[in-house]
Amino acid sequence: MKQEKVLPAAITIFGAKGDLARRKLIPALYNLYADEHLPDQFSIFCVDFLTIEQGAYRDWLLEGVDQFSRTGKADRQKWAQFSKSIIYIQGDFMQAATYTTLKTAIKKFEDTEKVRGIRMFYFAVAPRFIEPIADALCNNKLCNRDTLDRIVVEKPFGTDLDSAKKLNRYMSKRFKEKQIYHIDHYLGKEMVQNIMAFRFANYVFEPLWNNKYIDHVQISVAEEVSVGKRGGYYDSSGALRDMIQNHLLQLLCIIAMNCPKQYEAEAIRDEKVKVLKNIRPFTTEQVFKNVVRAQYTAGRVHGEDRPAYRDEEQVAKDSNTETLVAAKFFIDNDRWKGVPFFLRTGKDMPRQSSVIMIQFKDSPHKIFKDDVLPNRLMISIQPELEIGLLFEGKEPGLHMKLVPVEMDFMYKGNYMQSLPEAYEALLLDVLEGDATQFMRADQIEWAWKVVMPIIEAWKKSPKKGLQFYEAGTWGPKAADALLKPHAKAWYTFDHESEGATTPAAFDDSHAPSRVDGNGTPEMSNPAEKEAEQETSHA
Amino acid sequence: MKQEKVLPAAITIFGAKGDLARRKLIPALYNLYADEHLPDQFSIFCVDFLTIEQGAYRDWLLEGVDQFSRTGKADRQKWAQFSKSIIYIQGDFMQAATYTTLKTAIKKFEDTEKVRGIRMFYFAVAPRFIEPIADALCNNKLCNRDTLDRIVVEKPFGTDLDSAKKLNRYMSKRFKEKQIYHIDHYLGKEMVQNIMAFRFANYVFEPLWNNKYIDHVQISVAEEVSVGKRGGYYDSSGALRDMIQNHLLQLLCIIAMNCPKQYEAEAIRDEKVKVLKNIRPFTTEQVFKNVVRAQYTAGRVHGEDRPAYRDEEQVAKDSNTETLVAAKFFIDNDRWKGVPFFLRTGKDMPRQSSVIMIQFKDSPHKIFKDDVLPNRLMISIQPELEIGLLFEGKEPGLHMKLVPVEMDFMYKGNYMQSLPEAYEALLLDVLEGDATQFMRADQIEWAWKVVMPIIEAWKKSPKKGLQFYEAGTWGPKAADALLKPHAKAWYTFDHESEGATTPAAFDDSHAPSRVDGNGTPEMSNPAEKEAEQETSHA
Repeated sequence: MKQEKVLPAAITIFGAKGDLARRKLIPALYNLYADEHLPDQFSIFCVDFLTIEQGAYRDWLLEGVDQFSRTGKADRQKWAQFSKSIIYIQGDFMQAATYTTLKTAIKKFEDTEKVRGIRMFYFAVAPRFIEPIADALCNNKLCNRDTLDRIVVEKPFGTDLDSAKKLNRYMSKRFKEKQIYHIDHYLGKEMVQNIMAFRFANYVFEPLWNNKYIDHVQISVAEEVSVGKRGGYYDSSGALRDMIQNHLLQLLCIIAMNCPKQYEAEAIRDEKVKVLKNIRPFTTEQVFKNVVRAQYTAGRVHGEDRPAYRDEEQVAKDSNTETLVAAKFFIDNDRWKGVPFFLRTGKDMPRQSSVIMIQFKDSPHKIFKDDVLPNRLMISIQPELEIGLLFEGKEPGLHMKLVPVEMDFMYKGNYMQSLPEAYEALLLDVLEGDATQFMRADQIEWAWKVVMPIIEAWKKSPKKGLQFYEAGTWGPKAADALLKPHAKAWYTFDHESEGATTPAAFDDSHAPSRVDGNGTPEMSNPAEKEAEQETSHA
Repeated sequence: MKQEKVLPAAITIFGAKGDLARRKLIPALYNLYADEHLPDQFSIFCVDFLTIEQGAYRDWLLEGVDQFSRTGKADRQKWAQFSKSIIYIQGDFMQAATYTTLKTAIKKFEDTEKVRGIRMFYFAVAPRFIEPIADALCNNKLCNRDTLDRIVVEKPFGTDLDSAKKLNRYMSKRFKEKQIYHIDHYLGKEMVQNIMAFRFANYVFEPLWNNKYIDHVQISVAEEVSVGKRGGYYDSSGALRDMIQNHLLQLLCIIAMNCPKQYEAEAIRDEKVKVLKNIRPFTTEQVFKNVVRAQYTAGRVHGEDRPAYRDEEQVAKDSNTETLVAAKFFIDNDRWKGVPFFLRTGKDMPRQSSVIMIQFKDSPHKIFKDDVLPNRLMISIQPELEIGLLFEGKEPGLHMKLVPVEMDFMYKGNYMQSLPEAYEALLLDVLEGDATQFMRADQIEWAWKVVMPIIEAWKKSPKKGLQFYEAGTWGPKAADALLKPHAKAWYTFDHESEGATTPAAFDDSHAPSRVDGNGTPEMSNPAEKEAEQETSHA
């Protein structure tokens, strides 16, 4: 579907020879172009330190598109058209000359098009380059029109509250808040956006969405991948900073927030900030009671040998960095008082599964003696996209006997076309000036405030409570024990194996009957899967 | 699954040469036997006026099983075993000798088994025989042990409030209330029983189940069949007496009732009676405003020519009997004040469809401009067995655009075995002494009280407001107009044709995306369909 075209766009990618540019940004821009979502006039300025010929650079990008684009191999004719607009600019991010060259190139594009359109600057760079690039953009007046010029920054947004505040202050002296798009690609995911529609366009869920009816919430992002080549960055970060502080707390906000006044960036982000502000802060003692951290040891995932975390490249042999976190949070407001929000993420787990599970309370008055199953609403974000409601029905037959059944809505089967990737949606949002799915500076700071007590407690006692789990398992027992008495095990969405909906979570292993019959998952290419998870760019 | 066996049973069917016995009762008993649900010792005494040899009678029944049983042709070996227990007793229901013969036969069975077990007397007879048979059973002390002896009576239970009261009084002088099982086979249907489980074993529905969240309820039993050979009975009855007074009001009770104290016959029926008592009575003027009656004219159903009702066998050429009723009821209690319950039933409609649709209210605060669709819970009772929730989701793609989607739970695909028929469940209930799915005398009287103002208003003005609709259509416009402003057309469940979920009911023909991919309906044999609907025995 062709949307209304936006102004001409001068798009600059800093870090153009990096993984993110090749795996995500260029494939996303190419798909936006192919689907006619880009403006008719656009140019992509690709800035990086390495020297490479224009043609060789474009070929390197084309290989990336062929390998990582959701649409598969690029159409050669479309690519030829598209790639004409790609201009590689060799330059050191720390050198003034780089920005002079860039400015000349952008001006030339704008002079040709006779319109001063949108300028987007994508910071696909290591954190240490953010401030110098921002400063240079400011000094060169490259990003000075607040209605037209936009900066896109990738996480990590600082490494703790102080550094995040410092970074925000630095940026806010140079740009207007509304010019800065803090990207959290989880917010661009189809199913995550659908949660907003699901919650706020359907009045039947709102009456149930509170501590009177909800027992607890589980938000789990299990990753099949290991730390891979990201050891250098990861070892100084860990799962708490890499996943919980951003992705998982953002998912928590979407589940817990009140309905915004309007579907509009400021109103939505105001409501999300309110949630973060209301999360109960941990004392040091509470950290060790409510947060489990663990690190993987050698094991096997899908029959593939995996080394221990401490044997990964660029990881310290005595590292205490966590590759798995499970935490129990409470939100101290009227709606959520007393409802635990369990968050878990880990690497080297048996399979990829990003899910949200909302478990409802049991009826205060039961009339069936075999009514043992609480209702559950299950939202699978990836790899499957699905919403399901677990309930009890009558088992067909001559007597009234209850059996767990599921009502499902699946994207598969309903929507046959390949779904746009998060980066496509988010890059188009930036071009259109829609900040709805981006994080505001205060959101980032409040999210840091939530995790700071954990960071500090672990810093003080680096080994205290650190657990180990074998690669290819669902993590240490302590992570399951955290759920008590609300559940016995973490919910993991499994559409392939009948009844694997954590039967352990129920006393008598009720295996729900499933409406199934669909084929393989939407996203089954292992390269794609890896790319989907390879979100940072150390 | 083998249930605990009950006491030996002497089962008597009065009206043993009738359609009900052949199409429903014997196939149900045979299937109960085949699935090992009958007691080890049982005998079936088949009483009717006609003279027929034992062997010929059994053969005639076997043909019926072969044709009408849900399990298809009977297993010859099992039938041979089963049919040994069938004893045909020729006798006039009005003659004392009949009961003497019957008593001797039952005594002989009980003497052989050396146990005085259960006695069940099934009245599959025209209404005029009910009292004489009951009287004879009483006089012969055939049904005098209130814990063991049971009578099963089929509708019609009288033809109006007075006759129903008279009949109840007559019976209550001869038997204990708990001995009398008033059968409404709709209550034995799998999905109808499932509604009880759905409502009362799942706490997520209860908070929504009231006038704050529900806009209106539609209960629709559309029949594809015409009046067929039932003209003689039907012409003096009509759709109001034949369907609304019993089946549809019972469905209304199940949707509207409060949770019973226990899942137990008296508690459940107490709650149902409360609903009937709270239905707002019509004045004569209100009858003509809130109740639409119509009669079919000649037309075509599934390409088959159908005569006008007035041209059916045994129907008066100037008959004003209604073959379709649509009515709007209100229940004046805290839960339902202001929520219309729309009931509709009709013959010669385009296809069979028994559905309940609960439409929820719209959100008081909408944040999406394209949020136009109210949530709907849809319960399909037959021919498909399905529960679905219509909601709005995000259309996959780069922008936030809402689209109607459905969460479904289907029996098909989840339960592969053929489901027991209503009569199997209900006959076993009688043998087990479980009256949960049967109507109590006061329920019947209260249901008559609800329809009496309509009967009287129509009697006073036999032609006033009578509409006509062509066979093979969904009825007169007036039946749709009754729904205003809550809906534009009656909801008709249609799983085959995408988007046929009454698009007319929504301004902009939103066609929900469906999770489908199943084959043909469970019940696709036309003979079976007809039998399913051929419920009376004039």
